[in-house]
Amino acid sequence: MVSIRQALQLIDKTITVTGIETITAENSTDRILAEPVYAPIDMPPFRQSAMDGYALHFHPDFERYQVVGEIPAGSDKTYELKPGTCVRIFTGAAVPESATAVVMQEDCVAADGHIKINGTLLKGSHIRKQGEQIARGESALEPGTRLTPWCVGFLCALGITQVSVYRRPKIAVIATGSELIKPGQPLTPGKIYESNSYMLASAIKHYNCGEARLFWVHDDLDAVTQSLRDALTWADFILLSGGISAGDYDFAGRAMAQNGVNEIFYKVNQKPGKPLYFGTTGQNQYLFALPGNPSAAITSFLVYVLPAMRKAGGNGFTGLQKLKIPLAAAYTKTDNRAHLLKAFSDSGKIHILSGQNSDILQSFTEANAIALIPEEAKTLEASEPVELFLL
Amino acid sequence: MVSIRQALQLIDKTITVTGIETITAENSTDRILAEPVYAPIDMPPFRQSAMDGYALHFHPDFERYQVVGEIPAGSDKTYELKPGTCVRIFTGAAVPESATAVVMQEDCVAADGHIKINGTLLKGSHIRKQGEQIARGESALEPGTRLTPWCVGFLCALGITQVSVYRRPKIAVIATGSELIKPGQPLTPGKIYESNSYMLASAIKHYNCGEARLFWVHDDLDAVTQSLRDALTWADFILLSGGISAGDYDFAGRAMAQNGVNEIFYKVNQKPGKPLYFGTTGQNQYLFALPGNPSAAITSFLVYVLPAMRKAGGNGFTGLQKLKIPLAAAYTKTDNRAHLLKAFSDSGKIHILSGQNSDILQSFTEANAIALIPEEAKTLEASEPVELFLL
Repeated sequence: MVSIRQALQLIDKTITVTGIETITAENSTDRILAEPVYAPIDMPPFRQSAMDGYALHFHPDFERYQVVGEIPAGSDKTYELKPGTCVRIFTGAAVPESATAVVMQEDCVAADGHIKINGTLLKGSHIRKQGEQIARGESALEPGTRLTPWCVGFLCALGITQVSVYRRPKIAVIATGSELIKPGQPLTPGKIYESNSYMLASAIKHYNCGEARLFWVHDDLDAVTQSLRDALTWADFILLSGGISAGDYDFAGRAMAQNGVNEIFYKVNQKPGKPLYFGTTGQNQYLFALPGNPSAAITSFLVYVLPAMRKAGGNGFTGLQKLKIPLAAAYTKTDNRAHLLKAFSDSGKIHILSGQNSDILQSFTEANAIALIPEEAKTLEASEPVELFLL
Repeated sequence: MVSIRQALQLIDKTITVTGIETITAENSTDRILAEPVYAPIDMPPFRQSAMDGYALHFHPDFERYQVVGEIPAGSDKTYELKPGTCVRIFTGAAVPESATAVVMQEDCVAADGHIKINGTLLKGSHIRKQGEQIARGESALEPGTRLTPWCVGFLCALGITQVSVYRRPKIAVIATGSELIKPGQPLTPGKIYESNSYMLASAIKHYNCGEARLFWVHDDLDAVTQSLRDALTWADFILLSGGISAGDYDFAGRAMAQNGVNEIFYKVNQKPGKPLYFGTTGQNQYLFALPGNPSAAITSFLVYVLPAMRKAGGNGFTGLQKLKIPLAAAYTKTDNRAHLLKAFSDSGKIHILSGQNSDILQSFTEANAIALIPEEAKTLEASEPVELFLL
């Protein structure tokens, strides 16, 4: 049995990134960049007008400039401007080499094919220099960058169509338990509805961890062994739901051993989720066996599996955001296990919810945090600060 | 021209929810519940053992209880227990009606087909009562609930397969501009790469706003008019990128008018993004025309379009999280427009980034916030608190 801290350290130490793949820039949202991106072009690619107005070649003696042409945005037209002449120009259009400034249309008066400028004129005004935003060959984005929508926009604006990112893990969710019936079927005596596989798949989707496939298997040794074997042909992660409580462990343990999965830890000194198991094949494939009780399963997912999958996907070992805030009321426990409690944080206080049993999801639907009461704590008084995982 | 506050109020007043649809519970992650969900079953559906151990019928004179059978989880087997007898039982199994308590296996000694209990026995101990978590007919989830993974789990555990949720909007992103070339094509003189459509689609995906389809059209009146007409046959939202700066507006404006889109506002007293347009057909279809400059486009999306789409999808008019923290250095502006600035918040201070021009995405990739400098501000001193939109 390990502590929560030890379990997290063992997971962090064991997990490595899943790998690198090349994908299209337009489909790279929220992926993690694996290799540096250098600008393949100058941006802007040419001297660009920042305004609608006139591009002119300055002449110290001239009050009026002759308008000799027009350059709309996107045009490849250009002009050799003599001092004292100008062209009508639009935002985004290429400013002729011979132009020394752009004057905004609001700052001049146009009449008789000429313009007269109000106020003073600054050299280079309203001209975006070629490569001003980024020059060809410069670093555009560094490895480890999360590709936000604006990073995706930046990549596209540079004309980049492919990026090298960390591959997100492929995840097999295997649910087992002879008491389980799929939702939609009639409930027969002694049975309950299977919810863990759907809940875990939903969490994998919500946290954008990777691609999940669901499997339901009879809880007999052959079925579970075969199911693990199949899953290991493609999955990076296996989440086995059920089959690891004291009575069952020999059984799931044998299925794992037969598939070359070696235990890193089994049992964490916590409530709920004590029989949590973590193992690996040693080939960058990981197996978490999660408790069958739904509330214990999702708690274990959030605290242990989420940071593991994020690390595999290139995000580093980062789980839910943590915070320390005071308890709204005293909390007492009589055991030596750490407690992970469904909680609601409100106006800077943390309320421990009722319905803490490991089967109860109802209270989870009302929670916005998981409060962590340390192993050694006995009675924590109201206003004592406790650590939270924010949902 | 309207202020930022007025623009947001007009959008909030105009937008209504898109509609309601029925989807499968397993695919309902992060959707907003439109109708109440009542428990179709008791949960647990029967008296359930919370532990591995023995279910017994208490007898005041008995120290030892005869083991008369076994009930594994999922079994429909039951027993009529006489006082002084017990059955072996496992977590999740149905406790016989005649049993008065479950004793944990750790709390008794089994030998010779009997168990001897250590310590005292509490009536009803380790038995989850039928309907203890929720009783059939009780409210399980209320309308407006965001279906977190644990809500999805709760629905499945109740055997629910279908839920009624707010439909997320269908969004047409139309990019226009004769200066634009698609990434992957060679860049010719006067052209730049189109990035807004990809960036907006990426943002729609990142914020889970709805389904986006992209269109690229020539910027002539007929093409844009036809494209709007096509989009209005299926889209709830149209994001038109480009074509609304001073010179172009007549043109996009005519295309909108020909399609029955009526202006709610045009131009917001802000920088960047002054020429922002918002209109509606009056048939729950909305059009935002966004500035062509990428940084102005994404800023406008985040401040105005995101809360609009969330409201349409049943989330209420909620945009990015807001916060007020002090400036790291003084900021001066000379105009009367509100400024929306790419910023980086660090250790409780907000740093205004360089590269504020509306074409520059590079600084956006380094930002974690948008700072809002109000219209009336001139010089804000260091440590003056300013409002932030957190990215």
